[in-house]
Amino acid sequence: MASWYRDELKVDAIAIDDRGLQYSDGLFETIAIRDGRPRLWALHSDRLQTGCRRLGIRLPAADELLHGLTSALRAAGKVEQDALLKIIVTRGQGDRGYAPPPNAGATVLFGVFERTQHAARLYQQGVAIRFCNARLASQPQTAGIKLLSCLDQVRARGEWHDPDIAEGLMLDQDGSVVSGTMSNLFIVRGSKLITPEITNCGVSGVMRRHILALAAVDDVPFEVDRILPEAVRTADEIFLCNSQFGIWPVSLCGTAPIDDWPLTRKINAMLRDSGVIEGPE
Amino acid sequence: MASWYRDELKVDAIAIDDRGLQYSDGLFETIAIRDGRPRLWALHSDRLQTGCRRLGIRLPAADELLHGLTSALRAAGKVEQDALLKIIVTRGQGDRGYAPPPNAGATVLFGVFERTQHAARLYQQGVAIRFCNARLASQPQTAGIKLLSCLDQVRARGEWHDPDIAEGLMLDQDGSVVSGTMSNLFIVRGSKLITPEITNCGVSGVMRRHILALAAVDDVPFEVDRILPEAVRTADEIFLCNSQFGIWPVSLCGTAPIDDWPLTRKINAMLRDSGVIEGPE
Repeated sequence: MASWYRDELKVDAIAIDDRGLQYSDGLFETIAIRDGRPRLWALHSDRLQTGCRRLGIRLPAADELLHGLTSALRAAGKVEQDALLKIIVTRGQGDRGYAPPPNAGATVLFGVFERTQHAARLYQQGVAIRFCNARLASQPQTAGIKLLSCLDQVRARGEWHDPDIAEGLMLDQDGSVVSGTMSNLFIVRGSKLITPEITNCGVSGVMRRHILALAAVDDVPFEVDRILPEAVRTADEIFLCNSQFGIWPVSLCGTAPIDDWPLTRKINAMLRDSGVIEGPE
Repeated sequence: MASWYRDELKVDAIAIDDRGLQYSDGLFETIAIRDGRPRLWALHSDRLQTGCRRLGIRLPAADELLHGLTSALRAAGKVEQDALLKIIVTRGQGDRGYAPPPNAGATVLFGVFERTQHAARLYQQGVAIRFCNARLASQPQTAGIKLLSCLDQVRARGEWHDPDIAEGLMLDQDGSVVSGTMSNLFIVRGSKLITPEITNCGVSGVMRRHILALAAVDDVPFEVDRILPEAVRTADEIFLCNSQFGIWPVSLCGTAPIDDWPLTRKINAMLRDSGVIEGPE
């Protein structure tokens, strides 16, 4: 069960004229809480600030946001515990009409959820994934930020019910692979990491950014590039990442089965060294 | 002031876990109520049904929807009166995660607003419009239907504050003109109506559909085609349409002023004959 908070008060509803509902006029973040602390907070905060700046939404200051987050965790009884925290920021309430109200105060909501526990085999044996028919809309003007508007992802996630399929890959309008529905994608070719560019669509995931930063520091060769489906199918290794599960090696994706992920394991070890510990040791 | 209704009850809030807020997982319609009756209801209902079918949202039957609409108007004291009615349909409440809940019952909300009164001069002397920098995302898979997700339109409408600019035109990702932020576009070249195709993005407006149907019946030559900005700037006539204001002739759009709209006036007369009466006689 989730608990939601606003201005340190528990809430279970939102005003019907909130522009988040009426126009999808907002953003969100999904943050892993470990021992009561938000993991990769600087990256989440940065993406949220960037998004609000690009949309002209007045976000509270970073320390105020962190205070709200901490209050929500406390109220939900998650002091020094693990959890998943979702922040929703909307432009606030307003009259009918697309024009942003000049003095709207943002609506900031904190949702506290149980941490999702993933089976150890997903990390050890890898996950099977698929290609989705639902594609991501092409919109360079908002690519990278995490919009409330997720209908493309919803359509994609609705395509399969097989619980053995952990994730679906989504293409952009030109047929390049962008990401999973809820994760970013890396492939390995030889000794090089490659991840799709997030320029026309897709979310610039915090775990993706963290991995790229670690790769840069540790001299792991990497490239941010256009990736065609065929490049995924013929990759030496494939892995997915997001803020919650960390890294999942991919065992099957319309490919011959993959059961060895040396570079993926190395990246995961680097993540662990940086404090991002998920899955079995 | 707006009043909102759900299941014939007045509501001012929506559950925070409604997928309309969480994922923009829904659709809407904005309907002109004249003398207590929804204008062009068949077209609104058809678009809503089509949209829900494409998204896999379980919409109530058309007569149930009409009953809800009528109840909302009655509750808001709008029997036999004019109003604006907004229907929001979302996939309903659900747990966190993009996957559509298998048995979600749709959330259906009816909002009753005062009819917007537009000055007679907008109809008589035409309106000034502009080109927006914010573009519409390219997404053929959902083009045409009226998604809750309107962030592109919000960004576009936020670009100007001059009250003398009535509307802004939006381009698609390839630089073709698609529509206004809240209206569809027609241009006239010689004796021919041309309206942008709604294949990669944009909303298939009910007034646009109605005008195209009238043009077909009355042998007004028309074309649905790609329109470049230059074609707008050099058009003989330009007009906008939507379900609320009917038709606005355009007097200025980066063009030499236009002050004569013979075909636009003819289309407006056809609209009147069909019962769509807006603006001065």
